[in-house]
Amino acid sequence: MRKKSNTIIEIIAVGSELLTPYYQDTNSLYITSRLNDLGLKVSFKTIVGDDHVSLLSCFKLALKRADMVFIIGGLGPTSDDMTREVFAEASGKELEFRTDLLDHIKSRFKKRGLIMTSSNKKQAFVIKGSEVIENRVGTAPGLWIEDLGTTAFLLPGPPVELKTMFESGVMPRMEKYRNGFSFRKVLKITGITESGIENLVSDLYPKSPEIELSVLAYPGQIEIHITSHSLSSPEKAEKMINPLIKSLKGRLKEHIFSENNEELEEVIGRLLLKNKLTLSTAESCTGGLLGHRITNTPGSSRYFLQGVQAYSNKAKRELLDIHEDVIKKHGAVSAEVAGLMAEGIRKKSRSDFGLAITGIAGPGGGTREKPVGLVFTALSWNNRKNVEKNQFLGMRDSVKSQAAQKAMDMLRRYILFNKIKPIKR
Amino acid sequence: MRKKSNTIIEIIAVGSELLTPYYQDTNSLYITSRLNDLGLKVSFKTIVGDDHVSLLSCFKLALKRADMVFIIGGLGPTSDDMTREVFAEASGKELEFRTDLLDHIKSRFKKRGLIMTSSNKKQAFVIKGSEVIENRVGTAPGLWIEDLGTTAFLLPGPPVELKTMFESGVMPRMEKYRNGFSFRKVLKITGITESGIENLVSDLYPKSPEIELSVLAYPGQIEIHITSHSLSSPEKAEKMINPLIKSLKGRLKEHIFSENNEELEEVIGRLLLKNKLTLSTAESCTGGLLGHRITNTPGSSRYFLQGVQAYSNKAKRELLDIHEDVIKKHGAVSAEVAGLMAEGIRKKSRSDFGLAITGIAGPGGGTREKPVGLVFTALSWNNRKNVEKNQFLGMRDSVKSQAAQKAMDMLRRYILFNKIKPIKR
Repeated sequence: MRKKSNTIIEIIAVGSELLTPYYQDTNSLYITSRLNDLGLKVSFKTIVGDDHVSLLSCFKLALKRADMVFIIGGLGPTSDDMTREVFAEASGKELEFRTDLLDHIKSRFKKRGLIMTSSNKKQAFVIKGSEVIENRVGTAPGLWIEDLGTTAFLLPGPPVELKTMFESGVMPRMEKYRNGFSFRKVLKITGITESGIENLVSDLYPKSPEIELSVLAYPGQIEIHITSHSLSSPEKAEKMINPLIKSLKGRLKEHIFSENNEELEEVIGRLLLKNKLTLSTAESCTGGLLGHRITNTPGSSRYFLQGVQAYSNKAKRELLDIHEDVIKKHGAVSAEVAGLMAEGIRKKSRSDFGLAITGIAGPGGGTREKPVGLVFTALSWNNRKNVEKNQFLGMRDSVKSQAAQKAMDMLRRYILFNKIKPIKR
Repeated sequence: MRKKSNTIIEIIAVGSELLTPYYQDTNSLYITSRLNDLGLKVSFKTIVGDDHVSLLSCFKLALKRADMVFIIGGLGPTSDDMTREVFAEASGKELEFRTDLLDHIKSRFKKRGLIMTSSNKKQAFVIKGSEVIENRVGTAPGLWIEDLGTTAFLLPGPPVELKTMFESGVMPRMEKYRNGFSFRKVLKITGITESGIENLVSDLYPKSPEIELSVLAYPGQIEIHITSHSLSSPEKAEKMINPLIKSLKGRLKEHIFSENNEELEEVIGRLLLKNKLTLSTAESCTGGLLGHRITNTPGSSRYFLQGVQAYSNKAKRELLDIHEDVIKKHGAVSAEVAGLMAEGIRKKSRSDFGLAITGIAGPGGGTREKPVGLVFTALSWNNRKNVEKNQFLGMRDSVKSQAAQKAMDMLRRYILFNKIKPIKR
């Protein structure tokens, strides 16, 4: 085997469905993340169907080119499932029948009041010389083969079975292959564009191979993922990353809304709870997305009182007391209406904050003065209000996402900077 | 080259970012779908980083084992991008400089008011004997190499560039490799479980290799994807599928909500518009998701009047006129409250339909009598109402999704079966 730092790892995802337009191999992302935690990297990913010839050639190749191979899927009871058999062939090993495994499979069926079908019997065959990895949530045992030059893991394809087995049975066995320690930090950012971030911080991007940095962009959200590796200890890995994090935070300041992998709705939930504040929402073009996001956080009923989706002008009048004249004069998509929506919902619900969105999500409905993507977001608090005009790019769903994100961010920044005290009730 | 029906196709996605936990290769799903349209299947997918040795071995292998290879990515201007150079090496070909390509790249920069950097010059090198495929939305030209025994396409990685080039430059060139014609149909289903569907129709699943059927399950939605292949004509492919579709429809009946790839919100939007009916919503545990889904359809303002997210009991009283006593007696999560929410929003908004949801999305808040996942969905129309009790499985987001889906499906079934006429206004 090569030096640990140069370990060549291949992941092979097995299954004909993975060669259709419908299914994506997501298991390998999870495995990659866990291997990265051990200071290991993936060099190849291969996706291959349930076909004897193809499987055989892929397995043979992996045994030749990789130091370690993770083969996922094809361990089930049906005739399609042939990973075990073909891997035995590729590695020149024999299969042996294990009565203890058959008993284990039988007892799983029994517990559920089912009778084992004869096809499950094949799951009790293992590759000679392999170590069995217990499957706590399914019938297919995993296998660990160490005496081939290439270390091989044969693991089940269903994500729940894979993850459970990986955590309980694979990670402990991987300890001896560990190439140091990794520490990962994610800075979640909103209210600034990707190029805005580049301008502010790109000179800080790490040059050493021990620290890696990736920038991921989503509608209304940018994430900086930083991973450091230390050969000696997790503490050193963490320490190594700290100066960079400090510099990034010094430059990006309040644009960072979380360094603990929280969603924006969790952050505002935490801020509201801490300050004993309540919130209500009034939405037009987002149609409920803002409320949906806010209530994705468990326990949000402690601060989210109510919302209205005032889609029609009539609804804006009736639910939010917005005068017909204002809508006529400025239009439903206007700073004036956005501000009145936020104020209206705050007063009607007697919440501390009112948050509102009105805009043109598209694809239709745009004009030269008010193009698609024009969205007003508004925050009302204690007889004051703040309205922002945004011009978002993208399709309807992206405009809606960015609008909800922006509204939540207005609230976050307001609470952060205004040292708000709860209103006496 | 083998018989067309046995053509071995490999897709190679190039890019070190695809070997991190953050990025998924999605291009190959699109390419697979388009190749399937030509009656061709993918045998291998390989994902490899921007590394000379790894790339070289993958390209050599593909030239050996595949009849056709699609190599995606690594055609950019930076030093990381080496697909062109390494493929030349793997195939024993030389690179040649094309002044016409350089002019094209220069003119793209000029049009945008930018100056071409010297690194872009490498994009004007092509593999000798290859045909250039124009890139209409980027600088990296695609390449088509036919004289290697293996037909190779080198294509850019950014999805917009890839798709544009594939449609305009690759599909026409693929015509001669066509292996017959495909016809695809998707039946979208709701209101029945996956095993319920299996029980109803699994005996109909096609046995002939000319028709393929896949069942995909999502929260509250199941899709049956059926593809047929004919060697002679698209009409024959369509005809081949029709008896199966007819049988499936005969068994699954109204559980099928679309055979035209519509979302459920589009279907109810169409039904409401056709019957000149309007809708308003009242949500508790879904917090706005139902309204969000409904307003994902462009033009939904023609039938969606308003919604309320009556998260607190106070909001249920104030926004929906639900008497305190009812909530006290039955609880906020009850058939009674759900029915009154639907009726309340219908009356308040003077819409034809009121649709309501109240439930326990979890993870907290469940009791033995009212466990997590218990959701009441209600429809109110013309002084009548219909309430359903559901017990959904899964996490908070899945419970919310299933609840919104179920509420929309109640409306769909009601309009379908009750031959509703618009109320006189």
